[in-house]
Amino acid sequence: MENLSKCQANYVPLTPLTFLKRAASVYANRTSIIYEGTRFTWRQTYERCRRLAYSLRSLNIVKNTVVSVLAPNVPATYEMHFAVPMAGAVLNTINSRLDSKNIATILRHSEAKVFFVDCEFVPLAREALKILIKDSPESSLVAAESSIPLVIVIDDVHCPTGVRLGELEYEQMIQMGNPRFEPGDIEDEWDPIALNYTSGTTSEPKGVVYSHRGAYLSTLSLILGWEMGSEPVYMWSLPMFHCNGWTFTWGVAARGGTNVCLRHTTAYDMYRNISLHKVTHMCCAPIIFNILLEAKPHERQQIPCPPVQILTGGAPPPATLLEKIEPLGFHVTHAYGLTEATGPALVCEWQSKWNDLPRHDQSKLKARQGVTILTLADVDVKDPETMVSVPRDGKSVGEIVLRGSSLMKGYFKDGNATGKAFKGGWFQTGDVGVIHPDGYLEIKDRSKDVIISGGENISSVEVESVLYKHPRVLEAAVVAMPHPRWGESPCAFVAVKKNRTGNIDDDVKEADIIAYCRKNLSHFMVPKKVEFLPELPKTSTGKIQKFQLRAVAKTFVVNESNLHQNKKRNKDHQPHEQLLSMSRL
Amino acid sequence: MENLSKCQANYVPLTPLTFLKRAASVYANRTSIIYEGTRFTWRQTYERCRRLAYSLRSLNIVKNTVVSVLAPNVPATYEMHFAVPMAGAVLNTINSRLDSKNIATILRHSEAKVFFVDCEFVPLAREALKILIKDSPESSLVAAESSIPLVIVIDDVHCPTGVRLGELEYEQMIQMGNPRFEPGDIEDEWDPIALNYTSGTTSEPKGVVYSHRGAYLSTLSLILGWEMGSEPVYMWSLPMFHCNGWTFTWGVAARGGTNVCLRHTTAYDMYRNISLHKVTHMCCAPIIFNILLEAKPHERQQIPCPPVQILTGGAPPPATLLEKIEPLGFHVTHAYGLTEATGPALVCEWQSKWNDLPRHDQSKLKARQGVTILTLADVDVKDPETMVSVPRDGKSVGEIVLRGSSLMKGYFKDGNATGKAFKGGWFQTGDVGVIHPDGYLEIKDRSKDVIISGGENISSVEVESVLYKHPRVLEAAVVAMPHPRWGESPCAFVAVKKNRTGNIDDDVKEADIIAYCRKNLSHFMVPKKVEFLPELPKTSTGKIQKFQLRAVAKTFVVNESNLHQNKKRNKDHQPHEQLLSMSRL
Repeated sequence: MENLSKCQANYVPLTPLTFLKRAASVYANRTSIIYEGTRFTWRQTYERCRRLAYSLRSLNIVKNTVVSVLAPNVPATYEMHFAVPMAGAVLNTINSRLDSKNIATILRHSEAKVFFVDCEFVPLAREALKILIKDSPESSLVAAESSIPLVIVIDDVHCPTGVRLGELEYEQMIQMGNPRFEPGDIEDEWDPIALNYTSGTTSEPKGVVYSHRGAYLSTLSLILGWEMGSEPVYMWSLPMFHCNGWTFTWGVAARGGTNVCLRHTTAYDMYRNISLHKVTHMCCAPIIFNILLEAKPHERQQIPCPPVQILTGGAPPPATLLEKIEPLGFHVTHAYGLTEATGPALVCEWQSKWNDLPRHDQSKLKARQGVTILTLADVDVKDPETMVSVPRDGKSVGEIVLRGSSLMKGYFKDGNATGKAFKGGWFQTGDVGVIHPDGYLEIKDRSKDVIISGGENISSVEVESVLYKHPRVLEAAVVAMPHPRWGESPCAFVAVKKNRTGNIDDDVKEADIIAYCRKNLSHFMVPKKVEFLPELPKTSTGKIQKFQLRAVAKTFVVNESNLHQNKKRNKDHQPHEQLLSMSRL
Repeated sequence: MENLSKCQANYVPLTPLTFLKRAASVYANRTSIIYEGTRFTWRQTYERCRRLAYSLRSLNIVKNTVVSVLAPNVPATYEMHFAVPMAGAVLNTINSRLDSKNIATILRHSEAKVFFVDCEFVPLAREALKILIKDSPESSLVAAESSIPLVIVIDDVHCPTGVRLGELEYEQMIQMGNPRFEPGDIEDEWDPIALNYTSGTTSEPKGVVYSHRGAYLSTLSLILGWEMGSEPVYMWSLPMFHCNGWTFTWGVAARGGTNVCLRHTTAYDMYRNISLHKVTHMCCAPIIFNILLEAKPHERQQIPCPPVQILTGGAPPPATLLEKIEPLGFHVTHAYGLTEATGPALVCEWQSKWNDLPRHDQSKLKARQGVTILTLADVDVKDPETMVSVPRDGKSVGEIVLRGSSLMKGYFKDGNATGKAFKGGWFQTGDVGVIHPDGYLEIKDRSKDVIISGGENISSVEVESVLYKHPRVLEAAVVAMPHPRWGESPCAFVAVKKNRTGNIDDDVKEADIIAYCRKNLSHFMVPKKVEFLPELPKTSTGKIQKFQLRAVAKTFVVNESNLHQNKKRNKDHQPHEQLLSMSRL
């Protein structure tokens, strides 16, 4: 039995590309994409992707070349999820909230050969390219040139702007392509399909590489875990640059659904599209709940029945927020994951016996991170020292570890970090959690150095490294502070060098530090509050005791209306209890 | 990117065994199995399987050893789907409707080392073992002994009988085992998990080998294709020996569902279990529809709302049968597959736009075979000579071919048949079909069922579907009969419903049937002869044995001048006893 060998008929490498080919065949005339006035069918989407793959090939894009994209959730971004790997290349979608410096770093590290830029982000891309050129080794003009990717602007298919950066435009690439192009099978399912940069815990972004196999299995798992049926109408409220839209870029094709593309996630645009196209599914960070809840009457529209299914993650949704959003016509499922796990790794699967519980208890159950998706082989919570599993008592904390074929291949050009992440045959999430007696996992604290603000990961180390460059900063530590809108926001604790004048008026102010950060960081990373201390608390070995600062930051309340922060002790909320998870999708 | 290597954390071989481990962890206290008065939870099922795997190991069951099972859909059969591969062995479930000669052939060919026999089948097994011993090479007693498997009787866990065949009993094996046994990971997902003998179209049964990878992917696909949500209550009306219950043995564990086991599929038992346990899902061949439809009033029970989901296959369900079964409280999905495809390969996915059509049109759409399951890479209909794809016009017929990782590894100890089946990089089903312009595939005939008359292809399925609409027809089958003018012509075999009067003059006549067909078919398709039988000959799985009817039809001679048929034995065409059904699930 063991000598029956693999052949072309019974061993086909697993890849999400088969989902598009299948959709073009069996859902040919169904609507694949709606973007304002533009509509495509699955047959058209497949043809457009084949054209683009052909054009990329004719630009000498060879196997494993990186193609970077800086764009919102427009049809082009969706199409590139298929067309780029069809050409044999690796898709790198870049977070458009990053600043030009970060983007330049990613372009350099990924060695991208082509860089697609949406018209809206042309100024940002221009800045990034300038930095890239400036930082190239001056000694060699050739080297500098080869490190600059070919830029292709994506103009708005719905409402063209004519903005350009270089010669090439996306629709031209489509037109030039061959709609009958046959890309051929993927040779090995372990080949890379996507490269996603995560801020991680160090200041340098890490390039997370997905295989075709991992992307394929994760896609199936998420459709299963969320129970997304056939013909979904899926609205793109989650950026496609987050773990390839938590794999639903590929998943909507697998289900023969309709992608409702959005340039901006304003309350008006979301309600309008939900109502107009009878949206059935959407993913988002909990920040989107606030946008939906705070919509003004003229921005709102009736949600069609049955409720819109929301899969949320990135940060645990507070139970109170769940209680408010669901009566508006939404049904929320909660997931937990990380870029390294190709998106959600756990889903809080609903149990029918919970239906009879009071709504508040339901929300509390729903706020737990849940159970592994089907293609993840295993999850455990282990003592990080001994690697022994903790008891399943809902109390014993340990580090959450994962293993399975839906995990990343590793970090691009970073063997050390890869080895460390996979130490002992498990992926170390750095997150701290418990397992309840019913097998559901709950995060109690997260990797110490990540702040999740509006669904975006902020590396505290990165913010600190900027603060340390300020001429007056002696010591700096950045931790998460609760924020009514963003969930968390960065709070900086700073000890300053003594000023020379001795004059208190010359002392550095909070506004100075914030202004300095705005100049040197992506805006979402800028601390919302700066607290001055004479000295930061330290361990005997001189390490800053962040847990103490976190406890203090927990008590800060941000007053959103006037952006003033009032320091107030909240006695009901002991910092320890409140240190909740911060899922890292 | 390509040098990032596989490790224990990110490359875990795909196997359905992970579904049970996961179910024991996250659905620990949910009911896994109900069988009359017996109930288990997923934690218990996992423990029982670990015990059994341990006991099998202590019987020196080593990797790739075959363990055969002859049993109905009782808990033991379900448990062995996990326990046997956990011990590293290969599960071979034997069709209990086969005769002792066939069973002996399977035991010999598979070289089974252990043979589990349900108490009900002890006499059948005893006969088979006698044949096995008798046919062993007399020259060597040692060889004869080594070819006899160790027999273990499965007594009824619900109602023990005390029947034995040898010393060992299943529950003893469970008791002797270690509930903490750790079987260790599967080494290679290409390793065999199951061996299923198919009667196919030749007389010698062929041993179809599944890999862990194929079984895993098929399981996910079928849950997805049927949209089976979480917590299903699944009733075992489909034998587990059919492609491992079309993979739902593993699938119910993946979904944390409840298995409702049945010893016999009587109308009474099915209605009782559906009503008592609120069954949500069941699979079956269309023959089960008749059992449900013909139930006497005291055997029937109310079907709970919402309707029970039925996945049917094995033979195309006539549209008229679909129209009758659904109003009883069932919702039917139609699938097509073969043992070689690990069960269903195509599912007739419902399209919402069909909801507004008249019921009869809906049934006709539903009777088509449909679209590929997600993990099947591709399906096509090709001219068997040129291997060129036929146009997607719903008219051009060709051979249905499949490729993908959910297909079998090959035929055990039959390299020739394996090579032939996978010729040209596609699995040749031998079935004939068309692809409609909407991408849905429809079978026009099982390979042997095309009747070629005067150069025109006649689909026997098409003629049968008209016959079934005749108010007095209970069963119908159409095969080719030699014809002096047209080469072949259709011959119908019909079993009629009893008439109410009991008066023989009221009975339906050949001329009535032919007249009915002339009204409802193109004239060249009308049967030239109708033969009445009390009952049509069927296989152990309830499929009509067309090969027998063909053999009979070969002996008919049509006298064209007066349309009289003379029955004449043609000695060259003896019906082959071994020729089993065409419908191959």
